[in-house]
Amino acid sequence: MSFLAAVRGVSEERAPIWLMRQAGRYLPEYLAIKAKSSFLEMTRTPAIAAEITLQPLRRFPLDAAIIFSDIMTPLEALGIAIEFSPGPSIAEPIRSRAQVNALELREPVAPFVGDALRLVKADLPADVGLIGFGGTPLTLAAYLVEGGGSKEYAHFRQFLRAEPGVMHALLEKLTELTIVYLRSQVDAGADAIQLFDSWAGLHDEPTYREFGLPYYKRIMDALADTRAARMFFALGASHLMEAIAEIPCEAVSVDWRTDLRLARKALPGRALQGNLDPAFLYSGREALAAEATRILEAGLGGAHIFNLGHGIWPDAPIEAVSQLIDTVHSFQRT
Amino acid sequence: MSFLAAVRGVSEERAPIWLMRQAGRYLPEYLAIKAKSSFLEMTRTPAIAAEITLQPLRRFPLDAAIIFSDIMTPLEALGIAIEFSPGPSIAEPIRSRAQVNALELREPVAPFVGDALRLVKADLPADVGLIGFGGTPLTLAAYLVEGGGSKEYAHFRQFLRAEPGVMHALLEKLTELTIVYLRSQVDAGADAIQLFDSWAGLHDEPTYREFGLPYYKRIMDALADTRAARMFFALGASHLMEAIAEIPCEAVSVDWRTDLRLARKALPGRALQGNLDPAFLYSGREALAAEATRILEAGLGGAHIFNLGHGIWPDAPIEAVSQLIDTVHSFQRT
Repeated sequence: MSFLAAVRGVSEERAPIWLMRQAGRYLPEYLAIKAKSSFLEMTRTPAIAAEITLQPLRRFPLDAAIIFSDIMTPLEALGIAIEFSPGPSIAEPIRSRAQVNALELREPVAPFVGDALRLVKADLPADVGLIGFGGTPLTLAAYLVEGGGSKEYAHFRQFLRAEPGVMHALLEKLTELTIVYLRSQVDAGADAIQLFDSWAGLHDEPTYREFGLPYYKRIMDALADTRAARMFFALGASHLMEAIAEIPCEAVSVDWRTDLRLARKALPGRALQGNLDPAFLYSGREALAAEATRILEAGLGGAHIFNLGHGIWPDAPIEAVSQLIDTVHSFQRT
Repeated sequence: MSFLAAVRGVSEERAPIWLMRQAGRYLPEYLAIKAKSSFLEMTRTPAIAAEITLQPLRRFPLDAAIIFSDIMTPLEALGIAIEFSPGPSIAEPIRSRAQVNALELREPVAPFVGDALRLVKADLPADVGLIGFGGTPLTLAAYLVEGGGSKEYAHFRQFLRAEPGVMHALLEKLTELTIVYLRSQVDAGADAIQLFDSWAGLHDEPTYREFGLPYYKRIMDALADTRAARMFFALGASHLMEAIAEIPCEAVSVDWRTDLRLARKALPGRALQGNLDPAFLYSGREALAAEATRILEAGLGGAHIFNLGHGIWPDAPIEAVSQLIDTVHSFQRT
């Protein structure tokens, strides 16, 4: 059940498992740290970020650790100030060419993330994978133009239609930033990099092919010569599978709405990650076991890394997480 | 370009057009009414609701009118108090069997909606369609359990997993309510009924088949012997097209992310409605005309009623709406 083998496409007897947002608010040991530090301090202090990253590994036999950070973290290196309250908030949303022109990449990009990765790596058993991550340019742009989180991202979507040239200029800068940032995470020891396209689901396929795909390909190509496996996750993207199949990467994570069997067909040769609806952690033992087993069976026919279809919720019952990991580890894939 | 013919599957030379939320905040004449009345007053006073419904028809050569109301409107007949601030808010979210058991249908259901429909009907040219609507039980349940709008509907999704039996009991009551409510709208003169499944996109297909589909079929079956055409709209539902194809109805509206050509294949024999991304109303004349034409071409091969892929936004430029209607009306489908 090695994450490192599965992410390279090796179809193992047992599926490895890690959970999106596995380090976080459902753990009392995380809340104890959070009581004393702001979110920004937690992500920017390597010892704290490393400790939070390792917390779920001490409690559960997970097969990979994902660095505790946020997709907005690297934006500071473009001179953008982000606040968390608790969601990301941008004091001056980017809605003009002048603002985009003023963005200038200052290296190093979030060096504290690399430092945290090094600390985690030193403490991690060799058979446990270490995952770094970043957001896609189009998802980062959604936050930057909108000014924060939103249900519909109306400002962002309007801006994309009204000023496609400025949008491309912004995506260009975000792509450069992301390449530097992700390569620095690989240099610091990440075995795999997940690119999160949290707001892929806003777009129709032609829009995704124009404003998303070319940048994602460049980022993944820039990681091709590194030691890290490349993983891609898009939320609400069942309608974009054909486009996603063109992204050079070893593994694709799918949310709980995309049937793993359909994903297997759409994404030949890729390891698949996912895709339990996080709501099943509240269903009781029997329904959770049945649903996890259904997903394990759907994941047959190629490499499968078990995961949730979206981040774990802050009030998830810890005993359900524990049961889920047991269920996955005791399922025989052959 | 008759809406009434197209919705029955007659493939006309010109596509008719109406817009989701066409009566609303982007119109100054609407804002003038809103300055003097609360949202509840506006929906509950037939003369006001009828006036608002007719406003866009006076301004634009639209092919159908949709009654000004809200999917939450009928819930009062189950004894549920809804407030708008501005989104719907439920003081006591429904999260127990006792609360569901206490819901009792008191007829008539929102009779002021029928009264408003009668007023509109009297004023509407015979070749302009009149559309009534309601929300699906599963979408209404999302609001009722969550307590209002939400990005992820975590409470609702947890409750559905933890208490599937109570959820079914709630859906049962919402189905009864919806049938009575929609039939009353047909009796009042609606030529077509649109069932809005605004939160379909939260669910994977097995969940949708268990908690959505059976109720939607019952509602549509209960309208089969009426004079009204039945229309179904699900948001974010590209992954649910096979399930939606089983719903008995004359027309399916698809959001901007579902390619109309794919929808045509998945939904043989249905009229299709949609599906311009509302963000294109901000793109300038040329891009808007090009995108509207792309959609008109994708809509060929069967009956097509042009619409947005989601409700129009409050700050939509009126001249773009006007241009869009011209573009659609001057496009020759043959």
